[in-house]
Amino acid sequence: MSLSLTFPDGNVKSFDDGVTTKDVASSISISLGKKALAGKLDGKLVDLLAPITADGAIEIITQDSKEALEVLRHTAAFVLADALSQLFPGLRFGQGASTDDGFFYDTDKDNGQVAVTDLEAIKNKMAAIIKAGGKIELASISAADAKARYQGDQFKSQLAANAGDPISGHKLGDFFDFEEGALLPDLKLLKHFDLLSVAGAYWEGKSSNPMLQRVYGTAYFKASDLEEDAKRRQEAKERDHRTIGRDLDLFFVDPEVGAGMPYWMPNGATIRRTVERYIVDREVADGYEHVYTPVAANLNLYKTSGHWQHYREDMFPPMDMGEGEELELRPMNCPSHIQIYKHHIRSYRDLPLRIAELGLMHRYEKSGALSGLQRVRAMTLNDGHTFVALDQVQDEFQKILKLIMSVYEDFDITDYSFRLSYRDPKNTEKYYANDEMWNKSQSMLKAAMDNLGLDYYEAEGEAAFYGPKLDIQTKTALGNDETMSTIQLDFMLPERFGLTYIGSDGEEHQPVMIHRGIVGTMERFIAYLIEQYKGAFPTWLAPTQAVLIPVKNDLHLDYVKMIRDKMVEAGLRVKIDDRNEKMGYKIREAQTKKVPYTVVVGDSELDSATVSVRRYGEDKAWSQSAEMFVNAVKADVANYSRKDARK
Amino acid sequence: MSLSLTFPDGNVKSFDDGVTTKDVASSISISLGKKALAGKLDGKLVDLLAPITADGAIEIITQDSKEALEVLRHTAAFVLADALSQLFPGLRFGQGASTDDGFFYDTDKDNGQVAVTDLEAIKNKMAAIIKAGGKIELASISAADAKARYQGDQFKSQLAANAGDPISGHKLGDFFDFEEGALLPDLKLLKHFDLLSVAGAYWEGKSSNPMLQRVYGTAYFKASDLEEDAKRRQEAKERDHRTIGRDLDLFFVDPEVGAGMPYWMPNGATIRRTVERYIVDREVADGYEHVYTPVAANLNLYKTSGHWQHYREDMFPPMDMGEGEELELRPMNCPSHIQIYKHHIRSYRDLPLRIAELGLMHRYEKSGALSGLQRVRAMTLNDGHTFVALDQVQDEFQKILKLIMSVYEDFDITDYSFRLSYRDPKNTEKYYANDEMWNKSQSMLKAAMDNLGLDYYEAEGEAAFYGPKLDIQTKTALGNDETMSTIQLDFMLPERFGLTYIGSDGEEHQPVMIHRGIVGTMERFIAYLIEQYKGAFPTWLAPTQAVLIPVKNDLHLDYVKMIRDKMVEAGLRVKIDDRNEKMGYKIREAQTKKVPYTVVVGDSELDSATVSVRRYGEDKAWSQSAEMFVNAVKADVANYSRKDARK
Repeated sequence: MSLSLTFPDGNVKSFDDGVTTKDVASSISISLGKKALAGKLDGKLVDLLAPITADGAIEIITQDSKEALEVLRHTAAFVLADALSQLFPGLRFGQGASTDDGFFYDTDKDNGQVAVTDLEAIKNKMAAIIKAGGKIELASISAADAKARYQGDQFKSQLAANAGDPISGHKLGDFFDFEEGALLPDLKLLKHFDLLSVAGAYWEGKSSNPMLQRVYGTAYFKASDLEEDAKRRQEAKERDHRTIGRDLDLFFVDPEVGAGMPYWMPNGATIRRTVERYIVDREVADGYEHVYTPVAANLNLYKTSGHWQHYREDMFPPMDMGEGEELELRPMNCPSHIQIYKHHIRSYRDLPLRIAELGLMHRYEKSGALSGLQRVRAMTLNDGHTFVALDQVQDEFQKILKLIMSVYEDFDITDYSFRLSYRDPKNTEKYYANDEMWNKSQSMLKAAMDNLGLDYYEAEGEAAFYGPKLDIQTKTALGNDETMSTIQLDFMLPERFGLTYIGSDGEEHQPVMIHRGIVGTMERFIAYLIEQYKGAFPTWLAPTQAVLIPVKNDLHLDYVKMIRDKMVEAGLRVKIDDRNEKMGYKIREAQTKKVPYTVVVGDSELDSATVSVRRYGEDKAWSQSAEMFVNAVKADVANYSRKDARK
Repeated sequence: MSLSLTFPDGNVKSFDDGVTTKDVASSISISLGKKALAGKLDGKLVDLLAPITADGAIEIITQDSKEALEVLRHTAAFVLADALSQLFPGLRFGQGASTDDGFFYDTDKDNGQVAVTDLEAIKNKMAAIIKAGGKIELASISAADAKARYQGDQFKSQLAANAGDPISGHKLGDFFDFEEGALLPDLKLLKHFDLLSVAGAYWEGKSSNPMLQRVYGTAYFKASDLEEDAKRRQEAKERDHRTIGRDLDLFFVDPEVGAGMPYWMPNGATIRRTVERYIVDREVADGYEHVYTPVAANLNLYKTSGHWQHYREDMFPPMDMGEGEELELRPMNCPSHIQIYKHHIRSYRDLPLRIAELGLMHRYEKSGALSGLQRVRAMTLNDGHTFVALDQVQDEFQKILKLIMSVYEDFDITDYSFRLSYRDPKNTEKYYANDEMWNKSQSMLKAAMDNLGLDYYEAEGEAAFYGPKLDIQTKTALGNDETMSTIQLDFMLPERFGLTYIGSDGEEHQPVMIHRGIVGTMERFIAYLIEQYKGAFPTWLAPTQAVLIPVKNDLHLDYVKMIRDKMVEAGLRVKIDDRNEKMGYKIREAQTKKVPYTVVVGDSELDSATVSVRRYGEDKAWSQSAEMFVNAVKADVANYSRKDARK
């Protein structure tokens, strides 16, 4: 018997039945035979040494293939399980797997508690297994054998019961495990791996199931990749807004009191208030009319808007208020702002009408998906809706874009890119039906981008049903993409709510609605800023802008208080540290709290009306007249911290 | 047979059975006989000429009695019904009554629509009835007669069926009606009355019953009282925050979209934002830590606080979030601020800890009770909670009080009084059980008031279960009392939530919690301000602070824009009116919108770098250098409008 195997380039070759991927690779070239790690048959990863028994499409997986890390990490998970079974006799096993950035294996908690402190020993055991030079082989056991083998282990028993008969897997010495996918036969490639953490994970991912313990690790082919990954993880840890949020006492979330509902501690609240006032002032100066609208409305409003029909699973359950009223916490602010528009008869002279609000909204997310300020159920959006005539789209779009870029500048957001989403020209019937609106507005958006001389990516077919949009993607400090701002045109809501304006022709026309966010929700934006600044906020945002330390309370406190009063009068946030602690301790603590300016005052400062100033993150202090210092900090704040007190 | 009647002074006299109140009054003095309007027998009002047939306590009602107006107005309602029955044949009748400030009668809508425009004719008919000189007499009809008489009138039939047999009432000529209480026999005292309005009212006050129409009127014994009442009503109408709110486009409430949930239009939102920033800044400067906490929490939080047990009917229905979580919109912010307190271990060095927030809360009110910004279901409270050691109560109380009085000054609130509420010393078991806390804190509150040299009323037995309090009552522009601020001590919540702090002795102690409001909710406070200022807000609060009008756009608009830019730079809210309208029209409109400064610029102003300024409410304009004007308005705002641009 012979087989026909088709290669990625379309070539078809014949092989003997039972040929392995390694044989196939070697038949092409000796070096490919050596480099081959596994095969991919009809899209499914198979072991390098597994016999091939049917025609199909074949691919040779080498270290250059995108699947290579998956095979390596899958192998690492297998070896991890082997090590655990040797170190923790009686431990019961769930499943292991490779992930995007590593691997894990789940085990029962009750029959062998694995602690973070055990990770070193487990890693050593894995290294010993690898060093022993054994080979992982394909193996299988009968269902009956599996039943006997896993008796008393509810998790493995359940997996085995669903795995067919016989159950095929792999063995390494005495250790056997069964799983989908391919492993490396030769363990010597598994050299650069690490174990990272132990965390809880529900059996089958369901919170109603028992909690297992999951050991996480990662593995690479190259030492340098593992090192870089470690650096990246360290960086992510140091920038983690939840950790910094706790260390700097910015916020907390207590799932017992309300999952996904952050409490902003005074420090975090100060940052948020500063951002809120800044953005409101910028918007008011740019012609926005700020409003306050209720966070809940009659459910009918969200039926008219269509949210209830299309977005229901992300909404909170309605409240029955009696008298036939069902009240719903709003998932978006647009219907509220439409109420403001509708409250008066509007004329072309009123347009563009710019309604803005710091709008509190509630969206349902599964409790498992919630995370710090990043994924929440209650959020306050820096929201704005502009109502324009169709021919005003370009000017208004340009105006919004300019505002966004100017705000970015003040927050020192410099790394961003633009993505224009159009409707699919081949499937226009999938979109809101008004060719003129689409064509005119899409070309106006494009013209605006060109006018401003901006680079942008055009994504055909990625527009929403109701209109084209611009997304502005920023790069976070960790290198991830985040959509910071959106300008979304909407032809549909004005129709659903029957919005009109009286044109200069005396006739009724339908306005276009532009949804726009500048910095998004306060929650996400401040999570972003925390990560960006690693908690070392620029002076204008810092909860405490300066700590003043008298060398001796009895001699210098009065002078320090005078400086404090002057700074407070200048609108600055200042604290005096007059505790009975050592000077060095106080300075270190101010640095730990990432306070922009630490100011020390002793005899020589008092005599010369100066202050000794230390900037956050710098070793050296400098001396400056107290008055100049206060003015400089004031300028630092007024100028969004583009300069500090020395310049 | 003879009767014993007891007089208010304790005297007992004998009279013949069947004697009338008029006879009794005349037996005391001829003038009392003439002045008597009705009697009060065992606390129940009776007709002057009704025969008395049993022993009892008697009181003679004259114009000086507090019940006199009730009798007069009750009589007026009777005459109103007589007039309506003559003018609208076939009209069906509900009930009439006297009220605190007038009287009314309800009639069916379907068989004779009474319009406001009918009131004059009805009033004339009432005057004619009175002038005819008939006397109201006691009368009664049998239940059977009543049944026949009111056939086809479901309302009167129902009333008659419940009124016994025979049914006693009054007649005037052919007109008969039955009711509780006493009427005047002689109509000549009913001279000074007026009809005020027609409004809908549900039969028996239930919204599930048919809607009737209610004619409102009022009556006095003296013409001057009626005139004063009219003035007061006119004043109330002119100051009505709902009317002004609509005229100045400050806010609206749409029950279809959300009963009791105001939408703040840009003008109202500007006032609110100004108040919010003002109060937050004042509090931060006074040592408060401002926070943001979620508007909803797990229902368990309100079970721990006790709100759910004692306050449930005022709360919104909980939302079932799945996974066993019931989420509740908070009715108060205290439990949220307690979470902030509990988030850290607190030491005596942290106290007083002052937590403040503009806290959004939701309280359920029946839809019928809702009114404008005054009675709402969603409200944002200027809330603060201070956590103190017991011996800090006096200082903290004094500090809060000083802040409140200083804020009042900035809002020009000058007419207020203090009310200290203590526990009832005779029923101490009705209160939170800790004598030391009560005694110490009550004496500290009193000492603080005395220290500050304030007058106050001491109300024993009016404290809440959980602690003594101070209420600050302001007089509104209409002369009503309103509780503007409260400082409420709370011994209970710290216990319910197990709050502690580590004392200087190293031991755990329970703090005292002080709930305090300064200006209350944004909704009520701004309703109050609207009424207070009649919509003519002081410059620092006015949505638009100045309107600039160029005499000729082509000649003066550039200069006007330059002034505008300078004012905006100074943080002022300015509009240019360059419409093609007459100058007089523009000035009048600015006055209608109650804009503090109307500024006109023509040739002479342009030549001399001046402006012509008109202050709201004044007829004469004055001339001033443009620069001085801008600076003066800036000072006007910075100084909370204690001076205007001239000084």
